[in-house]
Amino acid sequence: MKVIVLSGSLKEKHIEKIKKFSEDIGTEVCFAKNESEIPENFTDAEVVYGFGMNIAKTSKSLKWLCVPSAGVDYLMKPGTFANEDCILTNSSGAYGVTISEHIIAVSLMMMRKLTLVFEESLQGKWGSPRPQRSLKNCRITALGTGDIGSCFAKRVRAFEPASITGVNRSGKSGDTFFDKVVSIDKLEEVLPDTDLLVMSLPDTDKTKGILSRKRMELLPKGAYIVNVGRGTAIDEEALADLLDAEHLAGAALDVFQSEPLPSDSRLWNTRNLLITPHVAGTFSLDYTLDRNVDLFLEDLNNYAQGRPLSNYVDRKRGY
Amino acid sequence: MKVIVLSGSLKEKHIEKIKKFSEDIGTEVCFAKNESEIPENFTDAEVVYGFGMNIAKTSKSLKWLCVPSAGVDYLMKPGTFANEDCILTNSSGAYGVTISEHIIAVSLMMMRKLTLVFEESLQGKWGSPRPQRSLKNCRITALGTGDIGSCFAKRVRAFEPASITGVNRSGKSGDTFFDKVVSIDKLEEVLPDTDLLVMSLPDTDKTKGILSRKRMELLPKGAYIVNVGRGTAIDEEALADLLDAEHLAGAALDVFQSEPLPSDSRLWNTRNLLITPHVAGTFSLDYTLDRNVDLFLEDLNNYAQGRPLSNYVDRKRGY
Repeated sequence: MKVIVLSGSLKEKHIEKIKKFSEDIGTEVCFAKNESEIPENFTDAEVVYGFGMNIAKTSKSLKWLCVPSAGVDYLMKPGTFANEDCILTNSSGAYGVTISEHIIAVSLMMMRKLTLVFEESLQGKWGSPRPQRSLKNCRITALGTGDIGSCFAKRVRAFEPASITGVNRSGKSGDTFFDKVVSIDKLEEVLPDTDLLVMSLPDTDKTKGILSRKRMELLPKGAYIVNVGRGTAIDEEALADLLDAEHLAGAALDVFQSEPLPSDSRLWNTRNLLITPHVAGTFSLDYTLDRNVDLFLEDLNNYAQGRPLSNYVDRKRGY
Repeated sequence: MKVIVLSGSLKEKHIEKIKKFSEDIGTEVCFAKNESEIPENFTDAEVVYGFGMNIAKTSKSLKWLCVPSAGVDYLMKPGTFANEDCILTNSSGAYGVTISEHIIAVSLMMMRKLTLVFEESLQGKWGSPRPQRSLKNCRITALGTGDIGSCFAKRVRAFEPASITGVNRSGKSGDTFFDKVVSIDKLEEVLPDTDLLVMSLPDTDKTKGILSRKRMELLPKGAYIVNVGRGTAIDEEALADLLDAEHLAGAALDVFQSEPLPSDSRLWNTRNLLITPHVAGTFSLDYTLDRNVDLFLEDLNNYAQGRPLSNYVDRKRGY
């Protein structure tokens, strides 16, 4: 079995680990910094780990593509795979730690007015206390209960919130960190009792525009929104209106309809909007890349043994 | 029994609660916005709740002063109490929630480079990912294991750190959120294995200058410091030197040797130093004031029943 590892982001320790693992299970592995450096004798490889979009589009030999991202929206267009039966796995499970830390950081920055305090301190100004909110006794809704929602729920539970409600497609979760989990058709019942709404949804036909103006208006005055999933899930104009009108107390967006956020976007000047440039879940945290490689190797072992792959993506469903 | 409540910071609901409670236990209570508004017939009161420094200094009738702060350093000078036997209680227990949220917020802001990201976004600039650190697998030392240290340890444990070591006077703690607790004379053994040092010490003779230059140098390169206790605990010049030299990766100070921090202080221009204007534990969070009042009422009940007071301060020891 021939395996290509696109190793542009990998460190020496990861390459060594993959090499050793491949020897142990008897696979032939080739490391290429990017797709243009794949040697001729590996163009018929069965497995690719990395952003192998060109080889997926052209090679009928490719049976499994494992991408290092959690979101796979960019692989859903027809014609993405030359082999229609090619298996796709993502790296969901690598990002929960780093993204949940981001969610809690930006939530506290907003609720404790640390953005304003920090802005003043940059100007050498000793500010005054301002009204604060707390995660304690906060009613939290996690829209999306996958790896990210679940890692977040685990961490935020220690802050003694009033409740953590998960919202997902099935209304079910094996996860004990949520007080309850409801299905997406109950979203409008949950929003009026939500002080902090945390969104970690993939981009699919069903999630596009899911947080509409009408639904944002259902949030109580003074609510906060954090989005770390995909920017397509939120009506950005409505969000800006509701922030400017102070119906919402704050929002923190790491993802946008268009990235990088255009320099003339109204969002740059929207009140109480904390903008981060899609950095919640990058490889900037070593742990994330370590875990990413481990997830690939776990599934490489599964693949070699003919077992189902843990991070299998249902290409019809979109995640 | 006459009780004075200095009610300048209190809301109507707190006053109602104190009134009702006082009626129930049969005490005579007088509400005064500040000390200058205390009526003549209450100048011989037995109990004062609030910052009653003038009455403490002049009234020999005062038997118990309950202050709404956790720190009581400002009450330790000779001559503070006209009645040398006057009991002092503080409001330790009201601030753990709000201050532990502050600690986690500023720790994540530093470790995830959110201060830099936010600074860029204020300028309408879409930044790039930067190397990040995580609370996961982080070796944490909490210097001070009281209400604040303990609330922090509880919360940060959910982030899966490598270890949480408490350091206090006795080396003991009934608290299960620490992996271990050592006594202060072991501090220098603990510092080399500390990635994040969180300080929540009161200002006493024994804590002044406790984090000396020599001890800061014992921290590994790239360590972070958060101080929410008292500014006297840290050698500020040494801290600035070690930050500028990048031995320390960051520090977040909410307390300073001199407050407000003088506008010509070198700290305003120190690299990777996050300055907040003593806002970690104000009444800006409603919960803090609610809890503050509840703690006073619990001890008022203890006092009326002749029982020991929960928040008793040993005036010789200083906390």
